[in-house]
Amino acid sequence: MKNLTIGIDLGGTTITAGLVDGEGRILAQKTCPTALPRPASEVERTMAEMCAELVKQAGLKLDELEGVGIGTPGSVDGESGIVAFNPNFGYERWALAAAMERRLGCAYPVRIENDANAAAYGEYCAGAAKGHNSAVVITLGTGIGGGIILNGKIWSGFNGAGAEVGHTVIVKDGEPCTCGRRGCWERYASSRALVARGARAMADHPESSLWQLAGSPEKLNAKKIFDALHGGDALARELFEEWIGYVSCGVINLVNIFQPEVICVGGGVSRQGEVLLEPIRQALERENFARNLFRHTQVRSCVLYNEAGLIGAAYLARAR
Amino acid sequence: MKNLTIGIDLGGTTITAGLVDGEGRILAQKTCPTALPRPASEVERTMAEMCAELVKQAGLKLDELEGVGIGTPGSVDGESGIVAFNPNFGYERWALAAAMERRLGCAYPVRIENDANAAAYGEYCAGAAKGHNSAVVITLGTGIGGGIILNGKIWSGFNGAGAEVGHTVIVKDGEPCTCGRRGCWERYASSRALVARGARAMADHPESSLWQLAGSPEKLNAKKIFDALHGGDALARELFEEWIGYVSCGVINLVNIFQPEVICVGGGVSRQGEVLLEPIRQALERENFARNLFRHTQVRSCVLYNEAGLIGAAYLARAR
Repeated sequence: MKNLTIGIDLGGTTITAGLVDGEGRILAQKTCPTALPRPASEVERTMAEMCAELVKQAGLKLDELEGVGIGTPGSVDGESGIVAFNPNFGYERWALAAAMERRLGCAYPVRIENDANAAAYGEYCAGAAKGHNSAVVITLGTGIGGGIILNGKIWSGFNGAGAEVGHTVIVKDGEPCTCGRRGCWERYASSRALVARGARAMADHPESSLWQLAGSPEKLNAKKIFDALHGGDALARELFEEWIGYVSCGVINLVNIFQPEVICVGGGVSRQGEVLLEPIRQALERENFARNLFRHTQVRSCVLYNEAGLIGAAYLARAR
Repeated sequence: MKNLTIGIDLGGTTITAGLVDGEGRILAQKTCPTALPRPASEVERTMAEMCAELVKQAGLKLDELEGVGIGTPGSVDGESGIVAFNPNFGYERWALAAAMERRLGCAYPVRIENDANAAAYGEYCAGAAKGHNSAVVITLGTGIGGGIILNGKIWSGFNGAGAEVGHTVIVKDGEPCTCGRRGCWERYASSRALVARGARAMADHPESSLWQLAGSPEKLNAKKIFDALHGGDALARELFEEWIGYVSCGVINLVNIFQPEVICVGGGVSRQGEVLLEPIRQALERENFARNLFRHTQVRSCVLYNEAGLIGAAYLARAR
């Protein structure tokens, strides 16, 4: 077996490592708790052990791999292999790539990237944007994550901190954001924002089926709002239409800036598929600056879900 | 003399062509009226004649040049050399590069780009962003133009229509824009927006020195608002602070997306220099998502002004 790499998705709670083939298929996978807080060296050791186990079980040696890639939270300088800033882990200027190269003792370099960028790269190489030259991937979740691939390469800024599309203001002087700005896109268009708006609205709408579906505002989630929408609930329809207007607004902003071949929408809500995508496409037909041109950006759902980061990291290991 | 190219800035009113050396210096320059409306073939002929005259006066022949580049309004597909959409000229799918190659009869390809992108490329190659790897150039004028250079290359989207940073919404459901959206950045942060706001405000402020400086609201321009600001006029101060808040908001959006090495601010108002740049820098210190990192985007004024497009086009001719 040739052309195998290991991709690692280093999360705040869990580390997932997978042996991935040249077509982006995960042949074997391992998961360990990240077990924070603990020193960087211990997290590195855990990752190195996971790599060793994965290759051993496959009857291989580490230097028979094509490479190892890691997606990590924080601002990553891919060139130097340093995680410059990773507040959740508490590490500063973490020389992650060099540390892992030392531990693995291999000829190939270990490639690292920000986790959202790695996930976008996964969708680009083996998912919703496969075969295209440019893509912007947005992930609607607690916040809004972004990944930008242009001419086949991740663009994350000269300092590795770019693609923070969730922290672009679409409502000047609007709701305060955790980032210190007001009116950021993610305050209005993340799935958390949809749920928060719904939970507040329930009090004024005792007739809404959200009460039966969720029991109480505290137990509301995005899935239940979509269930109520499909059941014909008026409040859910109102919540959805307001929210999708905000989602579309930010998507059109990105299209007018990048005119990428593909915009991929990820996160749990993207499982709603066309329900989500069709209103975005309609808004683009009205407002895309390039709507009179022959070639338009396509809007698609992400397809790799939780595996995107691992698969993207595995492809990064190959992208020298 | 070696390494000479011709750059052409094709405008709706004027065509400017210049013979440019390897350091971005304009050695000779010609200007002709565009004289619209007239057929594309006649505009091409004029440009070809201008090229012939420029080289003749320099004692050269056309095939002693390194190349010819053209910055043109409209959506440009640089690969195919076609201007896909250029509403002001009234040409559709104009195969400009091929037509000019035929007329010039030279061995080198003619390179074409959108005029705003060409101007940004000029600042990148020979102006405010010289020596850097990435830059976003914004031009505050009637609207807000943009140009994006990443890894030394212009990014204008897969269809050539990207970098329309002026048409990103920063005030959801705000003022109607010519593009069909509401609340676009350029409705609030262009120099025209500053002047329009000032002209409306004058009626309520008979005490303002803007009346002495401009005579009437119709004769107000950005320069007069800055003159009043420097003279201590309270209304001008208020107008400036509101406007620079909008400018900064959009600049920070672009920084959070791109984290470029440099943001260059152009257009007539950029002659104000630090008066304009310092408040933007202060806003970035508060709101840049990467403010805790060691390396931050620099904010600078454009330096090439009206010559940026011509010089950028001349460099494009070299950028094979």
